[in-house]
Amino acid sequence: MYTLKDVAAHSGPKDCWIIIKGTVYDVTEFLPQHPGGAEIILSYAGDDATGAYESFHPPSFLETPQPGFKPLGPLLPSELPISWKPEIKRQSKPPLNTIINTFDFEAIAERTVTPKTWAFYSSAATDLLSMKLNKKAFDQVLFRPRVMRNNESADTRTKILGFDTGVPFFIAPTAMQGMVNLDGEKAMAKGAREENVIQIISTNSSHPIADIVSSGKGPQKQTHFLQLYVNTDRQKTAQLLASAKACGLRAVFVTVDAHLAGKREADERLKVDVPVKSAVSGAISHNDEKGGGIGRLMGLYVDRTLNWEDIPWIKSVAGDLPIVLKGIQTAADAKLAVKYGVQGIVLSNHGGRSLDTSPPALYTLLEIHKIYPEVFNSLEVYIDGGIRRGTDIFKALCLGATAVGIGRPYLYALNYGAEGVAHLTQILKDELETTMRMCGVRDLSGVHPGLINTRKIDAFVEDGVEHSYVKWRPKSKI
Amino acid sequence: MYTLKDVAAHSGPKDCWIIIKGTVYDVTEFLPQHPGGAEIILSYAGDDATGAYESFHPPSFLETPQPGFKPLGPLLPSELPISWKPEIKRQSKPPLNTIINTFDFEAIAERTVTPKTWAFYSSAATDLLSMKLNKKAFDQVLFRPRVMRNNESADTRTKILGFDTGVPFFIAPTAMQGMVNLDGEKAMAKGAREENVIQIISTNSSHPIADIVSSGKGPQKQTHFLQLYVNTDRQKTAQLLASAKACGLRAVFVTVDAHLAGKREADERLKVDVPVKSAVSGAISHNDEKGGGIGRLMGLYVDRTLNWEDIPWIKSVAGDLPIVLKGIQTAADAKLAVKYGVQGIVLSNHGGRSLDTSPPALYTLLEIHKIYPEVFNSLEVYIDGGIRRGTDIFKALCLGATAVGIGRPYLYALNYGAEGVAHLTQILKDELETTMRMCGVRDLSGVHPGLINTRKIDAFVEDGVEHSYVKWRPKSKI
Amino acid sequence: MYTLKDVAAHSGPKDCWIIIKGTVYDVTEFLPQHPGGAEIILSYAGDDATGAYESFHPPSFLETPQPGFKPLGPLLPSELPISWKPEIKRQSKPPLNTIINTFDFEAIAERTVTPKTWAFYSSAATDLLSMKLNKKAFDQVLFRPRVMRNNESADTRTKILGFDTGVPFFIAPTAMQGMVNLDGEKAMAKGAREENVIQIISTNSSHPIADIVSSGKGPQKQTHFLQLYVNTDRQKTAQLLASAKACGLRAVFVTVDAHLAGKREADERLKVDVPVKSAVSGAISHNDEKGGGIGRLMGLYVDRTLNWEDIPWIKSVAGDLPIVLKGIQTAADAKLAVKYGVQGIVLSNHGGRSLDTSPPALYTLLEIHKIYPEVFNSLEVYIDGGIRRGTDIFKALCLGATAVGIGRPYLYALNYGAEGVAHLTQILKDELETTMRMCGVRDLSGVHPGLINTRKIDAFVEDGVEHSYVKWRPKSKI
Amino acid sequence: MYTLKDVAAHSGPKDCWIIIKGTVYDVTEFLPQHPGGAEIILSYAGDDATGAYESFHPPSFLETPQPGFKPLGPLLPSELPISWKPEIKRQSKPPLNTIINTFDFEAIAERTVTPKTWAFYSSAATDLLSMKLNKKAFDQVLFRPRVMRNNESADTRTKILGFDTGVPFFIAPTAMQGMVNLDGEKAMAKGAREENVIQIISTNSSHPIADIVSSGKGPQKQTHFLQLYVNTDRQKTAQLLASAKACGLRAVFVTVDAHLAGKREADERLKVDVPVKSAVSGAISHNDEKGGGIGRLMGLYVDRTLNWEDIPWIKSVAGDLPIVLKGIQTAADAKLAVKYGVQGIVLSNHGGRSLDTSPPALYTLLEIHKIYPEVFNSLEVYIDGGIRRGTDIFKALCLGATAVGIGRPYLYALNYGAEGVAHLTQILKDELETTMRMCGVRDLSGVHPGLINTRKIDAFVEDGVEHSYVKWRPKSKI
Repeated sequence: MYTLKDVAAHSGPKDCWIIIKGTVYDVTEFLPQHPGGAEIILSYAGDDATGAYESFHPPSFLETPQPGFKPLGPLLPSELPISWKPEIKRQSKPPLNTIINTFDFEAIAERTVTPKTWAFYSSAATDLLSMKLNKKAFDQVLFRPRVMRNNESADTRTKILGFDTGVPFFIAPTAMQGMVNLDGEKAMAKGAREENVIQIISTNSSHPIADIVSSGKGPQKQTHFLQLYVNTDRQKTAQLLASAKACGLRAVFVTVDAHLAGKREADERLKVDVPVKSAVSGAISHNDEKGGGIGRLMGLYVDRTLNWEDIPWIKSVAGDLPIVLKGIQTAADAKLAVKYGVQGIVLSNHGGRSLDTSPPALYTLLEIHKIYPEVFNSLEVYIDGGIRRGTDIFKALCLGATAVGIGRPYLYALNYGAEGVAHLTQILKDELETTMRMCGVRDLSGVHPGLINTRKIDAFVEDGVEHSYVKWRPKSKI
Repeated sequence: MYTLKDVAAHSGPKDCWIIIKGTVYDVTEFLPQHPGGAEIILSYAGDDATGAYESFHPPSFLETPQPGFKPLGPLLPSELPISWKPEIKRQSKPPLNTIINTFDFEAIAERTVTPKTWAFYSSAATDLLSMKLNKKAFDQVLFRPRVMRNNESADTRTKILGFDTGVPFFIAPTAMQGMVNLDGEKAMAKGAREENVIQIISTNSSHPIADIVSSGKGPQKQTHFLQLYVNTDRQKTAQLLASAKACGLRAVFVTVDAHLAGKREADERLKVDVPVKSAVSGAISHNDEKGGGIGRLMGLYVDRTLNWEDIPWIKSVAGDLPIVLKGIQTAADAKLAVKYGVQGIVLSNHGGRSLDTSPPALYTLLEIHKIYPEVFNSLEVYIDGGIRRGTDIFKALCLGATAVGIGRPYLYALNYGAEGVAHLTQILKDELETTMRMCGVRDLSGVHPGLINTRKIDAFVEDGVEHSYVKWRPKSKI
Repeated sequence: MYTLKDVAAHSGPKDCWIIIKGTVYDVTEFLPQHPGGAEIILSYAGDDATGAYESFHPPSFLETPQPGFKPLGPLLPSELPISWKPEIKRQSKPPLNTIINTFDFEAIAERTVTPKTWAFYSSAATDLLSMKLNKKAFDQVLFRPRVMRNNESADTRTKILGFDTGVPFFIAPTAMQGMVNLDGEKAMAKGAREENVIQIISTNSSHPIADIVSSGKGPQKQTHFLQLYVNTDRQKTAQLLASAKACGLRAVFVTVDAHLAGKREADERLKVDVPVKSAVSGAISHNDEKGGGIGRLMGLYVDRTLNWEDIPWIKSVAGDLPIVLKGIQTAADAKLAVKYGVQGIVLSNHGGRSLDTSPPALYTLLEIHKIYPEVFNSLEVYIDGGIRRGTDIFKALCLGATAVGIGRPYLYALNYGAEGVAHLTQILKDELETTMRMCGVRDLSGVHPGLINTRKIDAFVEDGVEHSYVKWRPKSKI
Repeated sequence: MYTLKDVAAHSGPKDCWIIIKGTVYDVTEFLPQHPGGAEIILSYAGDDATGAYESFHPPSFLETPQPGFKPLGPLLPSELPISWKPEIKRQSKPPLNTIINTFDFEAIAERTVTPKTWAFYSSAATDLLSMKLNKKAFDQVLFRPRVMRNNESADTRTKILGFDTGVPFFIAPTAMQGMVNLDGEKAMAKGAREENVIQIISTNSSHPIADIVSSGKGPQKQTHFLQLYVNTDRQKTAQLLASAKACGLRAVFVTVDAHLAGKREADERLKVDVPVKSAVSGAISHNDEKGGGIGRLMGLYVDRTLNWEDIPWIKSVAGDLPIVLKGIQTAADAKLAVKYGVQGIVLSNHGGRSLDTSPPALYTLLEIHKIYPEVFNSLEVYIDGGIRRGTDIFKALCLGATAVGIGRPYLYALNYGAEGVAHLTQILKDELETTMRMCGVRDLSGVHPGLINTRKIDAFVEDGVEHSYVKWRPKSKI
């Protein structure tokens, strides 16, 4: 039996005890190997770390012995604070083979990850209108299936920026994947191997890029891209790109729709129990007077002055890596992207997380067709947001997208580790194959707009014809 | 009192005991007369067959003595497994004369058929969007009733492919009707006699075609058509057609929208308790790694290479039987059907069961009017999916359909046997007569598009005018 | 204490006992004065009449002594059948002065009238789509209020067919008003006096026309019209019209949209406990194999052969009474009405009770504007269905209606007798005055289409431009 | 212990006792300092005032000693009437810093203000259709965000009628703010100081104008405008304007859409427990036969004859104060406003409180663009109704509004006093800044219609093209 005082005597990097759920552990040897970094553990050295522990680890983590995690014995019951009382266990996860679609993964994640993790990933800007519209837009597009087309099989292989992939979708970059699974981006890389799914690694990754890449087939054998937030300290961005190239990353996706974070109210309302730190950007979250929104707190280093004239500099530090702009929302900006010579654009409203009532990517895709269709001849176009079914993927491809990004679903699949990631890939691939065969298409060269009916949403898309009121401009003010 | 060991000693075709709900039966004499075939029972010979029994028989089946089904006595209570415990009884059915519409039949089926049967029949592809849209499309069409038209009576008789019928609707082909009622397609045939409702017999029928036909008025006196899935073994298809002709079937409906089955998640989630076998195609369902979807499991023999160039061969083996293609979903394919010289087409999205967000048949019907109206002069057009009211039938006829197919409602009516089938026919006929008289129409030659207002859905239908983006084609890939 | 045998001995018109809720009554003297006729009581003579009594009388009826209704004493408890057990009392009604809109009256009626009465009045055809759309159509029309118009007061007076009325709405004809209040149409007449609200008396009235008229201010002093169902026995119709004229009725509204009744399922599902008989048409309801739908059962005498060529005959028997056709649903039939020289038309889908998905009257009103606006110069146009607010009334007037019919709301107000009827009139009048003043209109000559915005529903209205598919006509069949 | 008789002996202005929740108080000294005036307390002198007290004071008011409010002791328990029984306490308010949006303020107000206060502020005309549509209209407008625009900061400053303000929104005039917080408009003025939010003071204010102005930074230092209901006694209006000018108010907003109050049913259903009196207009509310609607009862003095020809007179008494008309709902009236030479208009449907199904201000704003865009060059245009987010404000500005009015949200924020008001301002300002930066706008001179997509609502807005039926005019009646 230990007392609080006993524990408090061991609070340095050379002798570090912590308390988790009423048990005292010596974690001195664990410090250097903690994926989240030693600092975070040290901030609880000699003290209770139950809350922080539970925010980022599955309940089962300590049920088996962990290397470097040495249990010493129980704390005196009389000293147990209220937060150490055995709590109602988060529900357990059903077997992976009972999961048959993305919504299953989502529903299970809601029940089994920590409340803060759920808030961070599931939340979106203010009233969630864009997030819901993202999905609805796909649901309102109908197919025009062609029958009797000798559809014995369907081939889902394609190329993205010239790199082979087994499927026309990629793992969209999402921050701090260690919050849902300790192995985070490493498990994602491992799960992506099977079908050569391309993984885009976030600047705010939980793990170092090199570790992530080596968890897969390794550089040259598996394709990874880098998602980039440009740092106010440009030198850090240059270093990051140099490091990424050294690790074998093949392209840079520059995020342009989140130089400041949206107001994600579910996330703001939950305080951050423990600072979250990225192993790549070094950003750390702290609560502030606005609340505990991780997305906002981790984005404080992002350069808000970024503009089109910065593209040449980005190219200069990216070297021969292709540049893709992620977050284009108008045909006008797609046109600028062509003008500035980037290799691709991701039409995206950041999963509805940045600005509520910003347009679904599918609307923007249609807007480009109406106003500036030449863009499809100049660069590759991807879209993301609300894609939950193989049918959604097929619809995007019919409208000229080269591939689509899958964000939250891969996060929720990561809840099952690399196996979950691979399982999700198979689900989406299978749904896509079924859709292709039902529509009379054998490989992805066969998709075209005539296979879908977009009339239900066409009327909601800008076509570049000026409204009467576009002629008017308010007088300048101030 | 018997032990499990006692029973296990009787496990051959000449001496076959099984256990059902704790009672041991000698079913040796029943084997040759089992409508589902002897093999299925033999797979449980000497063993407990409760689960399989309950999946396909009404609870009341064994309450009265069954010929060839000889009760021997109870199993030792100590050997009773958990699944033999008396279960909560499925609810009982209200009297047939209290049922006044198709929705009553559906609600009762949900409460009284086995969970697997309900899952198989009620399920549809992925998110059920097409299934719901099928019904909504009809609800959004308004009437333009003409008054004071001397409507003393209404005559619902018509011809389908030249064959007389009392009503402009037919029994759409659905698989394994024995799952809802032991007599399955035979009871359906019997119930169809009264109004000369034409029955389309599925390739995946529970009963042999000859038995089905002889349960009605018999060949020449009652009209039956064959629904055909072309077999990868073309010889089997030729034999089936020869057999069907010999039995007096009058036309062949070739299904073209289900060479592979849709992803019907409610069905996949429920395991098949017992293999289901078709008496016509011989297909048997088994669980596999994707789940227990009966539709998918029974369709494994279907030839996925079927294409337009196969039509001449189908004609050659069908001889003088008219050919109808079931599952057309675009005006373009309707045009091809005319070109290839078939006698009819069924506009259908397979009850929303094949590909989610495929178009409601009513949309396709309007699309044909807009793009290729000549088709109505070249072949007969039928539609199915979502038709639940006499008003729905009338709307389809106003838009040029010769007749409509009724699928799930007849299955749910079959829950009451032949009487249920006849009762449903009377309900729909009565609703149709009321609609005709309310709209000022005395017989079916009087229907025309001016009697309905389709404006609410017109804007959602493709009209063949090219969108700007149809001009664009993605570069080929791979 | 009486026995059933005691009671059974008194079962003739000269000596009539009945049992109600366990009490034996001698009702011999009551027979000739029963508003529903002596026959109905006699059908229960010497027997229990509780069910019939409760279907048509308020629970409070027998709480005070009724003339001619002589209580003899209780039935032996041992002989009390289950239906005589004291039942849960229908809820009591809140004070009339707490009711501030039509929905209050409706909600109270649902709780306080008998289930059969509620089913008969509240039900509509099959899936209730038209009934709901009737209201929704009004809700989707917006105002374009003009401000600063010196709106000290609003004058709601107008003329209908040349007859003065205080308000531009009338009491639409509804059958068997005695079901909601024993005084039925008589109380309605009394309540209509105050604002000179014109009452249209149904052919299926509970009370004789003469009694109804004399309950108001009397002929010449108050305006009543007759609603007419033409009888298969034309002589009876001629007699009815002669009688109506003698009673001082001023116009004839011939119903043309209900020669057969719609399928009102809520009504069909409830059996008629006691035959309901009209004092005017003599129609009596009985259950039949389709169910207990009062509307259907009471309409069996209606001439289904009625057509436009019958108009001259109707005129001949109506003499100098103006003729109005009630139930016009297309501009084409409005045009025929002009051609046949009637004085008015009611655009109506019978409150959604006849044919489901028939058009809201507001759609038909707009259709006439688009296709045949000249009709407004030739006859008066009224509309009914879904009008629940003064705003609804004003919208109809802006689109050229002379007045609107109020149906169910007056029935539900009648639940409070004549006072309820007068209270409802004041509520609607007050709402209409507020609307007029808010829109800048001082009297009804000031209404015009520019005061409303109908764009939300315009696209759903036929405009007479032929669709491509109107060119096509199905080949005749049979 | 006191008896009722004891208390009744002290019922004059010089010796005034009242009973509140079973405690007797001597409030003689409190009379002259009561913000609501001495008369109201005197109407309960010598009697129980619990109901009145609770309608206008927070439950916590008497928990701390109040100057001039002298507790004498308890009433005899036997004399306690039912209304004195301790009631379930209204819920307590969460800390202000946990509130992150307008909806939080609203939800808390619903739980914590008195039922009558909630009914008065939250209610709207009849079926609430306009109130809901006000919000929905904003939600249906999408952004077209421009990215990579160097958005380090956003400047929300602007001018309204030439007066500086930190934000492009103002505090819309709402009546009797003392109902939600005893300091009412005074606390509002205090809370508005920080960002120079312009406050519009209602004619029906709880406090005198001079007191309100002096609660802020004072005249010349903070901007206040006057909302004006023209009195039937024009002399009173002239006096009010003279007084307002003397207090330093800078503009007059004449309300033109509420010369009579809408039918706000939630408000009418709750009786006024105590007369409510305005310190500015002197209007007092009383229950009448229509109910207890405060808005209606307090508007009885308003001149219903107001019309365009009165504008010159208003100008003459307003002197050099700019005139703004509040409640314009059509482009036609906007045009008249230009003709009559006012300085601004507020497009408004009075928060949906005046006439149900009147158009959302956003529709009217679009209508002006379509029909009479020149108006933006002649006067300033503001809109209000349904604005709950910074995104809503930005959309209005993009369409040419100079600023927007915020009504109910400021009332609900006032529930927290001046701090709540300031907190709401910061929330809206922060949301607006985020929106500006996300859309690529640095200051308010950068807004323009190209930044939004209004297609979803465009079709519902009148464009001045005449419908066929606009050509028709009903014949005059009466």
